[in-house]
Amino acid sequence: MTREQHGLFLIYTGNGKGKTSAAVGAVVRATGQGFRVVMLQFIKSGKRVSGERVIAERLGVEITPLGDGFTWLSKDVDRTMQLALDAWERAKAVIAGGEYDLVVLDEFTYPLQYFWIDVREAVEAIAARPAHVHVIVTGRAAPDALIEAADLVTEMREVKHPYQAGIPAQRGIDF
Amino acid sequence: MTREQHGLFLIYTGNGKGKTSAAVGAVVRATGQGFRVVMLQFIKSGKRVSGERVIAERLGVEITPLGDGFTWLSKDVDRTMQLALDAWERAKAVIAGGEYDLVVLDEFTYPLQYFWIDVREAVEAIAARPAHVHVIVTGRAAPDALIEAADLVTEMREVKHPYQAGIPAQRGIDF
Repeated sequence: MTREQHGLFLIYTGNGKGKTSAAVGAVVRATGQGFRVVMLQFIKSGKRVSGERVIAERLGVEITPLGDGFTWLSKDVDRTMQLALDAWERAKAVIAGGEYDLVVLDEFTYPLQYFWIDVREAVEAIAARPAHVHVIVTGRAAPDALIEAADLVTEMREVKHPYQAGIPAQRGIDF
Repeated sequence: MTREQHGLFLIYTGNGKGKTSAAVGAVVRATGQGFRVVMLQFIKSGKRVSGERVIAERLGVEITPLGDGFTWLSKDVDRTMQLALDAWERAKAVIAGGEYDLVVLDEFTYPLQYFWIDVREAVEAIAARPAHVHVIVTGRAAPDALIEAADLVTEMREVKHPYQAGIPAQRGIDF
């Protein structure tokens, strides 16, 4: 197998809007080309049904929220941490299993950033993937070791944001 | 109608990968929430069937390539320019018509950057949209006047790209 045919490791990071949207777009594109695709969401909870999950169900694509909607205001951090560790066990199995051509780890940078998951272990698990598997990681503040290991890294930089102007999140645009 | 309910104008710009992917993700999200959505592609030609178009057809969403795959190597620039102007006429009608809740102008920055379309006219057409219409523009080097007019701007900045390492575009990931 040549280097050209090896699955890529992509990161969408930065403080701007569009990281998860870009991953959803990648999921759609890959599904359209016949890839088997799974997206594991490390932070999002299943409580609020997002537009992307409605479509994922319609397409038979797995977009699986495994978090509890953690923010810096959350109270039960131990529970959130445990959910992230559980999600990581699942992610490792999915990456290594080779059943999927594209594995998206949405908002995976947060448990790395908080040192809940060891970044070296993450880099090793992703590097050891079967050759046909593409991996996309999203989330702010991707650790240097992860960026080092990636083939493609885009930083989504916030130039202007409507919440600065007091406009709240909107259905159909933000979720 | 309060400011909160007014449709947003978003821009995904910058030299990094993920602009069109983010727009496709937004299309999926909005479609999942019941929005009527159209994506007009100013540069892409219909020759190569992209993964997103396969899915768009399956979902009944309009993703319409109106360009001829223009690059700096293209020879018939007059034709490309005319296609962009035709696409812009269509875009203006779609934005003003209010039939869609989300209008995506994919790679719209290029005809602006080349002065084929007047950026003031673009800003006016977008500003005059019906209140429920969201607009997303993608493409490198969005002009300042367009950024000025937008509610949300994300710059996709290339941190690392596999083509630097000689890896060609891959089906399912790049198209």
